[in-house]
Amino acid sequence: MTDTARAFVPGHVTAFFSAHPHADPERAGSRGGGLALSEGVTVRVEPGDGVELDAQPIDVASVETVLDALGAEARVVCQTDLPLGSGFGASGAMALGTALAVNDAFDCGRSENELVTLAHRAEVKAGTGLGDVVAQARGGVPLRLDPGAPAHGRMDGVPARTRVEYLTLGGLSTEAVLSGDTAQLSAAGERALERVRETPTLTEFMAAAREFAERAGLLTEDVRDVIADVEAAGGAASMAMLGETVFALGTGLTDAGYDAAVCRLYPPGASLVSVDPETHR
Amino acid sequence: MTDTARAFVPGHVTAFFSAHPHADPERAGSRGGGLALSEGVTVRVEPGDGVELDAQPIDVASVETVLDALGAEARVVCQTDLPLGSGFGASGAMALGTALAVNDAFDCGRSENELVTLAHRAEVKAGTGLGDVVAQARGGVPLRLDPGAPAHGRMDGVPARTRVEYLTLGGLSTEAVLSGDTAQLSAAGERALERVRETPTLTEFMAAAREFAERAGLLTEDVRDVIADVEAAGGAASMAMLGETVFALGTGLTDAGYDAAVCRLYPPGASLVSVDPETHR
Repeated sequence: MTDTARAFVPGHVTAFFSAHPHADPERAGSRGGGLALSEGVTVRVEPGDGVELDAQPIDVASVETVLDALGAEARVVCQTDLPLGSGFGASGAMALGTALAVNDAFDCGRSENELVTLAHRAEVKAGTGLGDVVAQARGGVPLRLDPGAPAHGRMDGVPARTRVEYLTLGGLSTEAVLSGDTAQLSAAGERALERVRETPTLTEFMAAAREFAERAGLLTEDVRDVIADVEAAGGAASMAMLGETVFALGTGLTDAGYDAAVCRLYPPGASLVSVDPETHR
Repeated sequence: MTDTARAFVPGHVTAFFSAHPHADPERAGSRGGGLALSEGVTVRVEPGDGVELDAQPIDVASVETVLDALGAEARVVCQTDLPLGSGFGASGAMALGTALAVNDAFDCGRSENELVTLAHRAEVKAGTGLGDVVAQARGGVPLRLDPGAPAHGRMDGVPARTRVEYLTLGGLSTEAVLSGDTAQLSAAGERALERVRETPTLTEFMAAAREFAERAGLLTEDVRDVIADVEAAGGAASMAMLGETVFALGTGLTDAGYDAAVCRLYPPGASLVSVDPETHR
């Protein structure tokens, strides 16, 4: 027991999904696919109270739910370079990072699946995400074959490594989209997942993502223009679900003349970060 | 398609297990727990033929099976700092690394689960391992709740970070042990897994590992002496299954006066390694 601990949780852009509400938040969730990113959220916990993001106090419902579930009185200090509210799963990352770090710092004795489940439930209850947490726990190019927490949701992945670029034009409210009619979106999401399960390559993944973005009816004019520019320059791009963000593989956005943020696919999932270089504790 | 690719697969020491043979190698396997290590096997593939380990030609049945299954004519170049035949899952790592790298280099279009399944089947058929491959695919402190490949074997993990030390005294043949009577060993393994599922902490994990090593009847005199020395110095150690290897957390072996190899727990699972620093492909 060290009473402080740190965790890193990768950002996650969902490329396509279908929504699967359920009365039990552990079984609610989404099916779909996304990219886990080397940019993410670092969460440090220590005795105290209050939640901070990049040195500003912040209220995050899912983080509070996790703290309550673990019975922890902790100060939660989060840092990220990701844009917020733009489809990178920042709230899921904060919830999962809090679960991992609190469990370690305060000896809560939960397993990895239990911690992922806590964070997934908290996200679903807060209405801020349906599939980011389980995707962030796995890393890489996670495919969510079933909705829900680890006990219910089987996963697979597209084996890949690549540079990823992104450009954020604005925000979209996950809550607003998910509380609307999701039938058309979900049908498109099921179709996209089927495509990628059939041919689990990054090329097919991007084609399925692009088709989904078109069919789901969520493309804004600005996002559509940027994607078209990337494609005109020979690249592959699509829209982060849900944010006004375009992501592209390799140098897709740069080649199209945009000043994009650069990161890479992050195969490891979320995990504790060593604090002590000697003992790696 | 680049026609060459690299993968890194962590070493894995099994701490306790029960054997679950099955006519279908996809359902055969073991339940149990272990540690994935930052020392592992790097596998590079390119067009050609032949398998090398540390610049020496070598025959590895599981690697040949994987190459056949993917229809690949590849040269497989493996490098490792791990001792061989000593309980670190080197053959599983070579099989899994070959599957990941060949799939990438030759555009085989398999999913992560499919590749893990191929490597698991190959290991089981070769008789060289029952649970290393799925554990190496997950990373961290993998708990194998069910035997078998991803479609059958649920997994969990103990969330942890720690330095790990090991000392290898000699080799044990996995094949010889697994082909003998495993009833006593498996009963002890089931009990150990139950303990750790109840209390998924590193402390309980080491206690369960220690109890298993005693009950399974596989401790050699030399291994028993080294473990006793670590415990006398206040540390926790146990035996790698199956090898004449002692592993300890933190500075356990060093504190007991041994010149141990040092690595750390490796939370990420096996994955492709970027070859190009610019594109991260």
